[in-house]
Amino acid sequence: MKPYAFGIDIGGTTVKCGFFNNDGTFVEKWEIPTRKENKGERILPDIADSIREKLAKHGVSMDDVEGIGVGVPGPVLDDGVVNGCVNLGWGVFNVKETLSGLLGGIRVSAGNDANVAALGEQWLGGGKGFSNVVMVTLGTGVGGGIIVGGRILAGAHGAGGEIGHILMNENETECCGCGKKGCLEQYASATGIVRMAKITLSDNEKPSKLRSLAEVTSKDIFDLAKAGDETAVELVEKLGKMLGTALAHITCVVDPDVIVVGGGVSKAGQILIDTIQKYYVPAAFHACRATQFKLAELGNDAGMYGAVRMVLY
Amino acid sequence: MKPYAFGIDIGGTTVKCGFFNNDGTFVEKWEIPTRKENKGERILPDIADSIREKLAKHGVSMDDVEGIGVGVPGPVLDDGVVNGCVNLGWGVFNVKETLSGLLGGIRVSAGNDANVAALGEQWLGGGKGFSNVVMVTLGTGVGGGIIVGGRILAGAHGAGGEIGHILMNENETECCGCGKKGCLEQYASATGIVRMAKITLSDNEKPSKLRSLAEVTSKDIFDLAKAGDETAVELVEKLGKMLGTALAHITCVVDPDVIVVGGGVSKAGQILIDTIQKYYVPAAFHACRATQFKLAELGNDAGMYGAVRMVLY
Repeated sequence: MKPYAFGIDIGGTTVKCGFFNNDGTFVEKWEIPTRKENKGERILPDIADSIREKLAKHGVSMDDVEGIGVGVPGPVLDDGVVNGCVNLGWGVFNVKETLSGLLGGIRVSAGNDANVAALGEQWLGGGKGFSNVVMVTLGTGVGGGIIVGGRILAGAHGAGGEIGHILMNENETECCGCGKKGCLEQYASATGIVRMAKITLSDNEKPSKLRSLAEVTSKDIFDLAKAGDETAVELVEKLGKMLGTALAHITCVVDPDVIVVGGGVSKAGQILIDTIQKYYVPAAFHACRATQFKLAELGNDAGMYGAVRMVLY
Repeated sequence: MKPYAFGIDIGGTTVKCGFFNNDGTFVEKWEIPTRKENKGERILPDIADSIREKLAKHGVSMDDVEGIGVGVPGPVLDDGVVNGCVNLGWGVFNVKETLSGLLGGIRVSAGNDANVAALGEQWLGGGKGFSNVVMVTLGTGVGGGIIVGGRILAGAHGAGGEIGHILMNENETECCGCGKKGCLEQYASATGIVRMAKITLSDNEKPSKLRSLAEVTSKDIFDLAKAGDETAVELVEKLGKMLGTALAHITCVVDPDVIVVGGGVSKAGQILIDTIQKYYVPAAFHACRATQFKLAELGNDAGMYGAVRMVLY
């Protein structure tokens, strides 16, 4: 294996770039802006320019680079075709071939950003030491990634690991961003728990410190739950029940070694894991009841680690 | 690759044995009884004897055999360890190493029988031409198998594809065989739809031809539904809703190319597929809404085909 590789995590605002040694340690990490204008046509050329610049700075030849892994915020098929990516303005094209063409034919691998972050956590984060990992990322939405035998399960339409859209409540009246009603993400994300808080606070008159806040965040809810606020505890229980039940469905399908929980909401820590497990265990198939839960460890670097892992495996 | 291989499907009553050419065509297929006495200690030696006998009969040397694939009715880990198998009287041991030892060190692969049948259907049956397949088998219970990139997803505890135990109804009062209450299998199996029929027929007085039958079978229910019996139609709809919703959960996780439906209940044919899809489509993530449904094609031979495929890939 050649001594260097790049892991690139394309986001809607910035592109996180990692120049790695082939043991997964950073030579350097940096960010460049994501230029989305004109259907995002500058994004890949900007990345190519930035890679060439860093190679020159460190006196490394392209011949010593094993490859470039790229995480994209949209569905990516196994062959590298991006199936449209609204956040970047991209339509359907082969990101792997395009970036490779910009850099003299170098090996490129591409994956969906949530799947790529899951691979990073499996390799060097919360899932280290295990080859079968389910990762769930609780941020604005609920993202997920399934790693089987150390590889991303991308799926036939790039929808592998889209666990935020498991239907959890057929009586829901509000719409999810995806167009359905009652998706996991409407309850178990940062946005979801705040949405539930608004409904709960207007549905009853129970005293709660949440009522005194100008704007409720998911952090407020978890902090107040830790302090014993009854309404906040109820909301955390609701999130835990939805997520624990959905994860029990998921382990019946893929039976991972470990479930890694990441994203902003996971900063709540052990209370989150404990509440998920409270509902996970009775809903899970007996063989999967003892499946471990871990917190994610790589934070915002998970995408770069996972991206580079695609070319270092 | 060597010219021959064996695919062995161990059941609770008989062992189905297939002697194959390496293109997946049969040289011969036959059955031997499953001798379960003394903790099933004769099962693997009986298989080894039978294989030696067929090789002698056809004048084929063991050196011309690529390997032996074995399907087992219990959880099997990737390394060939069977995690206990009540139906056969087996405890925990390595079926791969044991059978290999009985046949001079030949290559053996082992998998759970539902997963192995799924692999057979993916290779040469309803999933032919696709590498990512979810198979659901509607028999006495609900079995499943997940094939990703042409390989079985066995899972960390051999519970990959145990989709019959996805929790579909938290208000259920009766127990599933697994100990939980409200598993998919309690509604969507042959036993499950008959169970629902008994409840429905005793809960109301609605006229139905089902009332005139001494014993109701799942075939009766589907036949009467096709003939327009209102209660039978309702029961088929209930089964379709449970299964369609569960399959929508599953495609959010693994996003297959195709869903193959097999087992005794699948003999009902298109009415079953249509009813599942009626509930699947609105519950599915948009990228997976058009995922194809196919009926299984290999019947009771699926296990032998899948077993031999494990050593012919």
